[in-house]
Order: sequence, then structure tokens, then C-alpha cells
Amino acid sequence: LASDERRLELALLGFGHVGRRFALLLDERRDDLRRAFRVDPRVVAICTSKHGSIYNRQGIDLRDAVARRSSGQSFGSHETPADLIARLESSAAPVRVVMEATTLSVSDAQPAIAHIEMALDSGCHAVTVNKGPVAFAFRRLHQFASDKGLSFLFEGAVMDGVPIFNLVRETLPSVKVTGFRGIVNTTTQHVLMALEAGEPFAAALERMQAEGIAEADPALDLQGWDAAAKAAALANVLLDADLTPHTVAREGLGPGTAAAVQRAFAAGRRLRLVISGSRGSGGAHASVRLTGLEPTDILATLASTANALILTTDLLDEIAICQMRGNVTQTAYALFSDLVTVCRRAGAGG
Amino acid sequence: LASDERRLELALLGFGHVGRRFALLLDERRDDLRRAFRVDPRVVAICTSKHGSIYNRQGIDLRDAVARRSSGQSFGSHETPADLIARLESSAAPVRVVMEATTLSVSDAQPAIAHIEMALDSGCHAVTVNKGPVAFAFRRLHQFASDKGLSFLFEGAVMDGVPIFNLVRETLPSVKVTGFRGIVNTTTQHVLMALEAGEPFAAALERMQAEGIAEADPALDLQGWDAAAKAAALANVLLDADLTPHTVAREGLGPGTAAAVQRAFAAGRRLRLVISGSRGSGGAHASVRLTGLEPTDILATLASTANALILTTDLLDEIAICQMRGNVTQTAYALFSDLVTVCRRAGAGG
Repeated sequence: LASDERRLELALLGFGHVGRRFALLLDERRDDLRRAFRVDPRVVAICTSKHGSIYNRQGIDLRDAVARRSSGQSFGSHETPADLIARLESSAAPVRVVMEATTLSVSDAQPAIAHIEMALDSGCHAVTVNKGPVAFAFRRLHQFASDKGLSFLFEGAVMDGVPIFNLVRETLPSVKVTGFRGIVNTTTQHVLMALEAGEPFAAALERMQAEGIAEADPALDLQGWDAAAKAAALANVLLDADLTPHTVAREGLGPGTAAAVQRAFAAGRRLRLVISGSRGSGGAHASVRLTGLEPTDILATLASTANALILTTDLLDEIAICQMRGNVTQTAYALFSDLVTVCRRAGAGG
Repeated sequence: LASDERRLELALLGFGHVGRRFALLLDERRDDLRRAFRVDPRVVAICTSKHGSIYNRQGIDLRDAVARRSSGQSFGSHETPADLIARLESSAAPVRVVMEATTLSVSDAQPAIAHIEMALDSGCHAVTVNKGPVAFAFRRLHQFASDKGLSFLFEGAVMDGVPIFNLVRETLPSVKVTGFRGIVNTTTQHVLMALEAGEPFAAALERMQAEGIAEADPALDLQGWDAAAKAAALANVLLDADLTPHTVAREGLGPGTAAAVQRAFAAGRRLRLVISGSRGSGGAHASVRLTGLEPTDILATLASTANALILTTDLLDEIAICQMRGNVTQTAYALFSDLVTVCRRAGAGG
């Protein structure tokens, strides 16, 4: 620890594909953070859902931890997220961060919200790649963090590590976002394009699952819940809304979708699952709709692997940002870029 | 001036459409800057190319200045850019900024480069909406600013106020850009799409000029110089190159273009003026080429009013950012967002 470096202690809740890829990315790029921000980040705690946990206040050997989990080993300790957050709370490190990378519960976003509340309550910054907390409780968590002088960050909630929330916060000062429109769910995008090409629904879905694109249980994607959570997150942050995925007008794919895709195509349109949001006199609202897009619409031209978001603004008219191909590295990068924001603020004396 | 606010003095060199729109935007959003950064920005000097200048150390009434110039009046003083920069140099304001909004000279980027050198040499931050300085002399000016502890910023050089340089600097920490590809010139985009629709070249161009899309002298656009300057700027900043528009491999539109557009279209492709850049073993290189794009290419799907840039990166694969419709407010916003960067750094004690 160089004499002018500030120690940053990090607890990682969730150690699936994303958590492990993040650990390797941090290991690889740690020196970028040390050089840029005079901060020395160490992961001191890792908690898995079913395979135990580790705590090491000197900093966990991340490559070793990833290798052990990837070969199926469990960690020896049974400390819970609450135990590990308590350890951070009692540490003397000037910067402490809890990273939430557990699985989304679309009914109530728990236990992710509880983890974030515990973290903030214990003086730790909270970073999540889980879209639940921002989709269900942005206003409350943001206010709580702000009152405590801490950060609550969630770049990975929409379009993985492609900057959306950071784009608006860091590069569009004084710009008011008045609405958005986008395609943000890859499974449904794949299925709709396969249906357009004439593949039957069940066969298309099985192929997605075999290729690892769709989840084993694809219901959250197909019913539009994943898109609704992202729409709520965007509306809450960019349009000052206070929505949840349950208050987003939601439509999903079903048995009639194949025929609807073909009807739209015959009429020269592309049926896509489109999220949108806008400010209104009674507050902001958001929706997830199967929408027949004109072929010249930039959303209609996206490949099956691509996501895109179009922001409508007061000063810059419409701007679009597109992710051509998503992967787990990009999701892990979302956590990394939020960690950089914490470091930047800490380095500036915050 | 609230007791804890730092005074920011600003000289505006160039007071055409962009300079005037910026002045009104600053007038309108000044309080955003005061609240966010505890900085009080005042334009104390304005220099026009042929209609005199103003200096007022209390701060110029911007609405009045815009109204006077827009109704054809000249300003009373004949102070030059050098005189006005000298006035800033001798001021006691803790933050001083020179904004360069003169017309691009594609042969050598003068007098813009000289203005920026004078500004930095006099302890002023330099912000330019003119792409010349970054296209011709980025490495030198960046180093000069850095040595002086000052900022040299140029968001408006490519795609107006849509964040490109800010996007990479502020929201993609630790990401390495390995290449880019884009459509960044609106006049040629309009002409090529008109040719595709069967309109003759001369008629298409005249229509663009009548609509104010193309310049009275469209040669810089049509010959690819504007695109080459933007390609050089992007390569210099994002790919560590040291190019000028003259060392960018350049192609433009000519008498044979209409036939080439039609041949490409008949073969299922869209002929567009595409810039690209990549890192190579002998350093980075960049080009401007008439390129036949597959119709599924996101660049082929852009409307005639749209620009887009695709960045290839190490961690996020490809990401694209698109400007749907440009206008003078967006160009003025580029200056505003760079001013925010100066304020942010000044507010943080820089």
C-alpha cells in the first residue's frame, strides 16, 4: 500500500458468472484504479448463494477464488451477507463497497434491496448489477444513500456495461431527458427474429436455450418482466418516476405471436418488444409493448444480438446508444465502471 | 456573487450562429452551473470576425449582445483575440476560459490553433467547437494544457454536442478503443441518399443549399475534408495517433458518384461516405471512403439527417452512438458541456 493510497474494501455478494468475471477483471485492471485514483481496491469478502463464503481482510486472491468455484469447490465459511457487511462496517478502511450480484427476484427484488439497505446503513457504498433495486426502490435507496453521503450505483441494470445511467449523469449535464424508447431484452429479440424467419416458436426457444442465450426458465424474458424491470429502472432514474415492474404496462410473447410477427412482416413492419417511457402531466409512465416498427426505424434494424436505447431530450433532440453484442464481460464491466465512479468520488475527497 | 462561489471569466472568439446560440444557452442555464459547481460564469469578452468586439469585466449582457448582432449591428471595440486574451490573463478570476468558435481552415487550422496556444499560455482553459485544433495538433495542445494544469476540450469537433470524447473519457474508464467506423458528415449523407432516390447531383446539392443543410461553398464537405478532419480528431484522441486531415486517406463525391450509388443499390448495397480508423503495428491510421454497405449495417440504416459512430473496444465489443438530427443548439451544447467539465474540475479544486 503506497503511503498516499486510500484502502478500498469490497464485499461481493453473488459469485456466479458475472461475479467471477468481475473478480478477474478487477484483478487484471487493478493498477488502472491505483494510478488514476490513488485507491487500492481489495475484495475482502465473497458470498455465494449455496457454496459458502470467504472473508480475508488482507484481500482475497481472486484468481484462486475463481478457480476454486469454477472447479466446483465450495468455500469454507458460512458467514451470511449480513455477517460480511458487519465485518466491513467494523473495518477502518476509508472506502467500503458492497457489490450486489445475486439473481433478480421479479416479485419484490429481495434479497437485493435488503443487501443494499444493510450496506448503506453500515456506511458502505452500494453497487448492483441486479436491476431489481433500481426498478423497485430507486427513489428510496437513492435518498438513503444521499443522506448518508454514499453512492448507490447500478449501471448494469440496463444494457450491461454500455453506459446509460453514466452517460446521462456524466456527459449530459443540464440536459433533460423527456422520454425513451428501446429494445433491451435479447431473448425476445432472438425469438421474434427467428419467428420472422419462419422458425416455429418452440424450436426457436429451444435453440436459444441450447446456445445459452435464453435462460432455462425463459418466462421472465418471454412475459416481458425483464423488459418491464428495465423500463421501470430507466423511468425512475431518467424521468423522476416512482414505478415498479408491476406498474409498467406490460405485454409479452405468447402462442399468437408467430402469426402477429408474420402479419406485421407482410405489412412491411417488424414486430419487436419495445420499451418506452415519457413524462406526462400526471407523472411519468412506461410500457413494454409488441410494436410493429417501420423498417427504417433504427430499432427495426438491430441484429438479434443487439440492444439499443433512444433518449429524447430537450437540447440534443434524439440520441441513440446501441450495444451490438452483449456478453458476460460487459456485465462485469458495469460493476467495474461503477467501482470507478466510487473511486473517482473517493479520490476527490468524497 | 455568493461568498463561496468562484468567478469564471470567459472570452468567446467567434460570434456566428453557434457562438450566439451558446451565449443564449449559457444565459438560460447559468444557474445549473452555479448550483452544481459553485462557479459563477460570466462572458467578459466577445470577438467577432468582422464586426468588432466587446469587453466588460462585470460580464456582458448576453441577450443584448445577441440581439444587437442578430439585427446587424457591429460592436464598438476593435480589440483583437490577443488583446482580449491579455485582458483575461491580467484578471484575478480563479478560472478563465477561452472559447474558440471561429470558422475551420482546413489547410492549417489557423487562427484557431494560435488562439488556443495563446489561451493556454495565458493561464486560460481552452474550449473549441472548431475541429481544426484537435485534427491538426491534438498531441501538442493536449501536452501543453497538461503541463500548465489546464484543460483543452473539443466535444463539438465530432457529432456536435452528442458525447463522443466525453463518452470515452468519463464513462468508459479502463476501456481501450481499438477502432472506429462512422458517418459524420451530413451534407454528403443527404446528397448520397438523394442520388439513391434518383435525384441528379446538382439538383440535390442546390436543394441542400436552399434548405441550409449544405454550405454555400460545399467543397470541404463534398471532397471529404470535413470527414477527414473528424477522422483525424477521433484517431488522435481515441487511438493515440498523430494524424492531420492531410494524412487521412481521403475520398470524396464527384461526377461519377451518382452512377456508383446506383450500381451499389442495384447490388443491394448503400453507398455512404464512411470514416474509419484502427490501431496498427506502425501506428494508427484513418480513412474516409465511399463504401458500399450491406443494408443490415447500422450505418446503412441511418436517415439522411443522422450521424453515427461505432467504437470497437476491448471490453465492450462494439458500441454505437447516433445523433438522429443535428442543429445549432446541439453544436452550442458541445461548448456548454465542455464548460461544465471545466467547472467540475475547478469545483473539485483543480
